[in-house]
Amino acid sequence: MVAMGRAAREAAETLRSASAEQRTSAIRAMAAHIRRHSARIIEANARDVAAATTHIDRLTLDKGRVETMAAAIDLVAGLPDPVGEEMARWTRPNGLEISRIRTPIGVIGMIYESRPNVTADAATISLRSGNAIILRSGSDALRSSLAIHRALAEGLEETGLPAAAVQIVETPDREAVGHMLSGLDGAIDLIIPRGGRALVERVNHEARVPVLGHLEGVCHTYVHASADPQMAADIVSNAKLRRVSICGATETLLIDRAVAPGLLPLIADQLEGCELRGDEASRQIVPMTPATEADWTTEYLAPILAVRIVDGVEEAVDHIGRYGTGHTEAIVAEDARAAERFLDKVDSAIVMWNASTQFADGGEFGFGAEIGIATGRLHARGPVGPEQLTSFKYVVRGNGQLRP
Amino acid sequence: MVAMGRAAREAAETLRSASAEQRTSAIRAMAAHIRRHSARIIEANARDVAAATTHIDRLTLDKGRVETMAAAIDLVAGLPDPVGEEMARWTRPNGLEISRIRTPIGVIGMIYESRPNVTADAATISLRSGNAIILRSGSDALRSSLAIHRALAEGLEETGLPAAAVQIVETPDREAVGHMLSGLDGAIDLIIPRGGRALVERVNHEARVPVLGHLEGVCHTYVHASADPQMAADIVSNAKLRRVSICGATETLLIDRAVAPGLLPLIADQLEGCELRGDEASRQIVPMTPATEADWTTEYLAPILAVRIVDGVEEAVDHIGRYGTGHTEAIVAEDARAAERFLDKVDSAIVMWNASTQFADGGEFGFGAEIGIATGRLHARGPVGPEQLTSFKYVVRGNGQLRP
Repeated sequence: MVAMGRAAREAAETLRSASAEQRTSAIRAMAAHIRRHSARIIEANARDVAAATTHIDRLTLDKGRVETMAAAIDLVAGLPDPVGEEMARWTRPNGLEISRIRTPIGVIGMIYESRPNVTADAATISLRSGNAIILRSGSDALRSSLAIHRALAEGLEETGLPAAAVQIVETPDREAVGHMLSGLDGAIDLIIPRGGRALVERVNHEARVPVLGHLEGVCHTYVHASADPQMAADIVSNAKLRRVSICGATETLLIDRAVAPGLLPLIADQLEGCELRGDEASRQIVPMTPATEADWTTEYLAPILAVRIVDGVEEAVDHIGRYGTGHTEAIVAEDARAAERFLDKVDSAIVMWNASTQFADGGEFGFGAEIGIATGRLHARGPVGPEQLTSFKYVVRGNGQLRP
Repeated sequence: MVAMGRAAREAAETLRSASAEQRTSAIRAMAAHIRRHSARIIEANARDVAAATTHIDRLTLDKGRVETMAAAIDLVAGLPDPVGEEMARWTRPNGLEISRIRTPIGVIGMIYESRPNVTADAATISLRSGNAIILRSGSDALRSSLAIHRALAEGLEETGLPAAAVQIVETPDREAVGHMLSGLDGAIDLIIPRGGRALVERVNHEARVPVLGHLEGVCHTYVHASADPQMAADIVSNAKLRRVSICGATETLLIDRAVAPGLLPLIADQLEGCELRGDEASRQIVPMTPATEADWTTEYLAPILAVRIVDGVEEAVDHIGRYGTGHTEAIVAEDARAAERFLDKVDSAIVMWNASTQFADGGEFGFGAEIGIATGRLHARGPVGPEQLTSFKYVVRGNGQLRP
């Protein structure tokens, strides 16, 4: 693994100096090779699926999904290349001209579980930003990931960029994760974990290198007393049920006491097929399973919704501060002052007013692509696209200035 | 210490919601109290100085230096408050309006050595950004730091912001550092170490929370064959000797073989009082101490300069990549193509053309103040001022949008 790290570091040096066009053609070639090897990828995936016991849907690839993966890669190829972009420029009174220029970070270590398409997403977004990447796929999706990686590597090879720009750990035992978290002798600049709570905890405990954390999304939708009833019902239903397995899905509904008697039945009506787990006050309005303390902190990723009655914005904000994961929270309100207070007070990566929490997504934000939603407060926060995987340096141009 | 962490976390919540005006008046009150207690601070400092054996100059405070410290605080009070600033705003085709808003990071743990003024700088810059801070002063400057902290705390108290916004560890044994590096039960969001190699290594080894690293500054000035001779001599002399004890001071001179015979004597002439340590080729031009491998990696912080002859930009870039610390490097050249190649290839926080490396400073960059120069590539890089101590969140305003 240390050899992988060294190769990645060298590849990162080459990538940093490569042109945007080279990176673009490499990404395009990757998409072409994914399409060319669709059958091989689906075959490898079938073996993963046969061995799997859970998350079958997330894991399964078919012709359509492989094409979706290739199309996503094409999209990344079409995104502006962030490397070398001038982020700011100013001139000092002494004539020094300072500019802030985007640079790659270097080598990224990506540790992920289940979804095989993350292999393609992470590799191409990382390459778009000029970074080398070492992928460590979860064992559930390993055969699929290896087949996808093989196609990506062929694409790289075709365009003359170093193969070590995208490497994958072929025998992903737990030790491999440990090696990556140790930083491979200084070769890894940033670890990005995407997976369940056990992985996140292990990473936080063991990592010797910076981590771009992706906590679970225990997202909240808060229906304020001033909410438009139909809009509230539509938003809650979309935020919960559009896709229950994504991290931006709402897991807890908070609703103001004043309007709950009229509104909660309307909302419940629109949540067909969804199990509701409520606090005592909400159960007096709509019959539902009693919620326990654990329900407030659970990312269900399933058609289950926790429901709690609150007394106004402050109580909603307090609940979110106590139980949330800093991912995405929304308020539904017609009262602009209440909404602005909520947007200001809630310190999550994404706060929304009158919109579905399922918009928490790099594509929906206009970033073109994402490899996840960062829930920490350092370096990047919210959707992580190509721009978020860059650093910068200051370039100072003078004509002989000396510091007095 | 865990109680300190909890108090800091609570204070951070209050600070985040405080107004810019409140933060400004608190900082102004801090400056006033520093001035009021000048005698008390100088007295405490005298006891530190009496006990000290090294770095006496860096450590010593007198009336003038205390006034300089107070003036620096006033400067921070006058800086724009970054919290709540809209960094970007855009509208999506579906009408969602997304803005990126600056937020504080939360709680900062600052571990530093020697210079007592860091206590005031770190506390006020942190407060300007809406963060709470826990200070751990080196034991050499502890009495001074405690006296400065007491003045700052009185300023805070006067304006009604929580005292726990600026706390200092009163018995700074090694264990206190360990506790801080463990994150104090999740209470610390970011560790900023400023000190020698031993501290930096300990932090990198033990930290369980993100670190904004401040490596040593082994800075280089490279004199290209096309350099204007007098400008080269002036820049090298300023970069080395203006102040030898700052991290942006040049420690190694690289000079092109073609011009070394004529130029090196001129440069050496202008470096009066500076010890030169050269490679073989440079010693054939100017008599100097032989340089050993260790000289290329040493941050002298003293009137000593390592000298090496190189063959062109690539060799200079290679030397810097191999021995540098990613801090600040300069090229002196009239040939714009050579300069641009250097600026592009060298991946340090700051790269300069025809200017002294001693401009590596937040004040000189126009940031108003700094608590150090970050040499990592995550979150912040280069001078760290109030803006660099912030995070951001996305605020999304809609009118009932549902994700299709």
